[in-house]
Amino acid sequence: MVDKPAPRRVTIIDVARHAQVSTTAVSKVLRNAYGASPAMRAKVQQAIAELGYRPSAAARGLRGQTYTIGVMIPELRNLFFADILDGITAQLAGTDYQVLIAPGCNGEKAEARVIDAMIDRSMDGLVLIAPVSAKTRLIEVARRVPTVVVGRHGSSPAYDSVADDDVAGAALVVDHLADLGHRRIAHIEHHETDRVRLAEMPNARRADGYREAMRRRGLAGFIDIASTSYTHDGGYRGAKELLSRAPRPTAIFAGADVVALGALEAIAEAGLSVPGDISVAGYDNSALASFGPISLTSVDQDGRQMGADAARLLVDRIADRDRRPVQVQLSPTLAVRRTTAAVSLE
Amino acid sequence: MVDKPAPRRVTIIDVARHAQVSTTAVSKVLRNAYGASPAMRAKVQQAIAELGYRPSAAARGLRGQTYTIGVMIPELRNLFFADILDGITAQLAGTDYQVLIAPGCNGEKAEARVIDAMIDRSMDGLVLIAPVSAKTRLIEVARRVPTVVVGRHGSSPAYDSVADDDVAGAALVVDHLADLGHRRIAHIEHHETDRVRLAEMPNARRADGYREAMRRRGLAGFIDIASTSYTHDGGYRGAKELLSRAPRPTAIFAGADVVALGALEAIAEAGLSVPGDISVAGYDNSALASFGPISLTSVDQDGRQMGADAARLLVDRIADRDRRPVQVQLSPTLAVRRTTAAVSLE
Repeated sequence: MVDKPAPRRVTIIDVARHAQVSTTAVSKVLRNAYGASPAMRAKVQQAIAELGYRPSAAARGLRGQTYTIGVMIPELRNLFFADILDGITAQLAGTDYQVLIAPGCNGEKAEARVIDAMIDRSMDGLVLIAPVSAKTRLIEVARRVPTVVVGRHGSSPAYDSVADDDVAGAALVVDHLADLGHRRIAHIEHHETDRVRLAEMPNARRADGYREAMRRRGLAGFIDIASTSYTHDGGYRGAKELLSRAPRPTAIFAGADVVALGALEAIAEAGLSVPGDISVAGYDNSALASFGPISLTSVDQDGRQMGADAARLLVDRIADRDRRPVQVQLSPTLAVRRTTAAVSLE
Repeated sequence: MVDKPAPRRVTIIDVARHAQVSTTAVSKVLRNAYGASPAMRAKVQQAIAELGYRPSAAARGLRGQTYTIGVMIPELRNLFFADILDGITAQLAGTDYQVLIAPGCNGEKAEARVIDAMIDRSMDGLVLIAPVSAKTRLIEVARRVPTVVVGRHGSSPAYDSVADDDVAGAALVVDHLADLGHRRIAHIEHHETDRVRLAEMPNARRADGYREAMRRRGLAGFIDIASTSYTHDGGYRGAKELLSRAPRPTAIFAGADVVALGALEAIAEAGLSVPGDISVAGYDNSALASFGPISLTSVDQDGRQMGADAARLLVDRIADRDRRPVQVQLSPTLAVRRTTAAVSLE
């Protein structure tokens, strides 16, 4: 084969000529407008099929919907987000919507760039997963384009939201460990200082839930937190810090599975065994938690369901931008596996 | 706050009025066209900043570039693809290009849908990672929009490609295991029957490399392949099958890290230890391979570098669509870790 220039794009004029109808008629069929007879519709659709005509999304964008939904995820390495994406795409299967994903990188500046890019590209709606951006900014975005926020608490006058009951999830872990006889139950949290984020972000709610449950179980004196980040490295550093304290904890509740993996690494390096010397629990019940050689006890917040609910809310909001915002909160469960066991000696 | 309709979009007319220049002048500045004086440019840019004007990407799409690059990845759960994406975004940092990702789900139909959606949205260029679509189809796509294919071998008259030397990578594993005294080295491959894909897909090249290296080491009689898929489940099933054969292998070369993890799970279930009873090696050196408790010996194909090369080639091709196609092939290395050791008894 020889290099040749790209073939000329088939246009609406070609379709009209081929179907022997007017371009206005083709346009009506394309827009599903009134006034196109079934016979006309059939003729145009046949011409479209025969010529391989694809209406330009840019052109469609100028006159209405682009059938594009932008999903901003914090990062690509946390497998829990893949569960949410599965739920979104499953819910949209069979519709004309195409999902396009971009990472927000857990930073306000990067998130602003991604969100602006999605608005620039006339996306019909946005799903923002655990965004760290200021709430005023999120509301501003939602006033411009239908938006659903996943994994962030608090009500909003402009966007719908789907979140897991993170306080209840943390309590499931503390109760499980306390029932196993643990008292020195430590927690690795994602460091947070912003006032609004402290009220709304799942990480902050989990730390609150941990403290509340410890108090409720009469373990207030054993509250012990390492404040790092929800990353593998954050878990590694957090566990190292906790292990260096005397007396060291007999159990660690990591705020996310990816954090628990980092903690497991630090514990192995310190020559300690799990769960013999120390129990570890995570949060998200991501694919890794159930992986046999890891077998991590973890809170299941059903990412697929969260994603499906988010997609459903978004499609409803695209159809009716003035509907009242909805907050969906799901109840977590605990998947108990091999990394947690009864306390041996204190 | 009270619900109110979305604010009216700031238009080029508003910018012209605010800057007290003509809309033609604003348009020139936006297009970086000749004939806009530095003073004019400054005035317009100030008005743009003050009004928060953002040119509609749909409108830009009609008159030229959309500054959007579509990246199709096979799936979101293989962490190696995150390395490639890191390389792509790092290479594009500081440019106007926005990367948007969609999963192709390892199927021709799903890939067709994603690629069509990206072309419909007037993306400036595509990076297709390990696509399974027919080669004629990939060439057709590349004739319409600048395209770089990552992780697929074979030359093309239309697209650039970046791949790892998979035959050499497989040989690194076989040589490492043979040097440790293993002879019964088995392989788990991704099942493939299509003639073109057998020549071009990394999985098929790795299986070829395995067979070649076994023969070169005088181990042709020990060639033993389980043909499943490059997924966690494929690794699990493949290892179960290999372990049921008598005599069972002393080492398993899994074609991808995600496959190796499934194999580790099956081996643990069978009550065997790694590397005491059986050695395991993977391919990709993804984040999981270096994770302490797993510590998987794996072939490193440097996904970041592959992604960076792909982005560089794509930007070059967008600038000059008629340049000759380039094939970049990278040399892999072996990261030796704790899952491989000298053979004990046969």
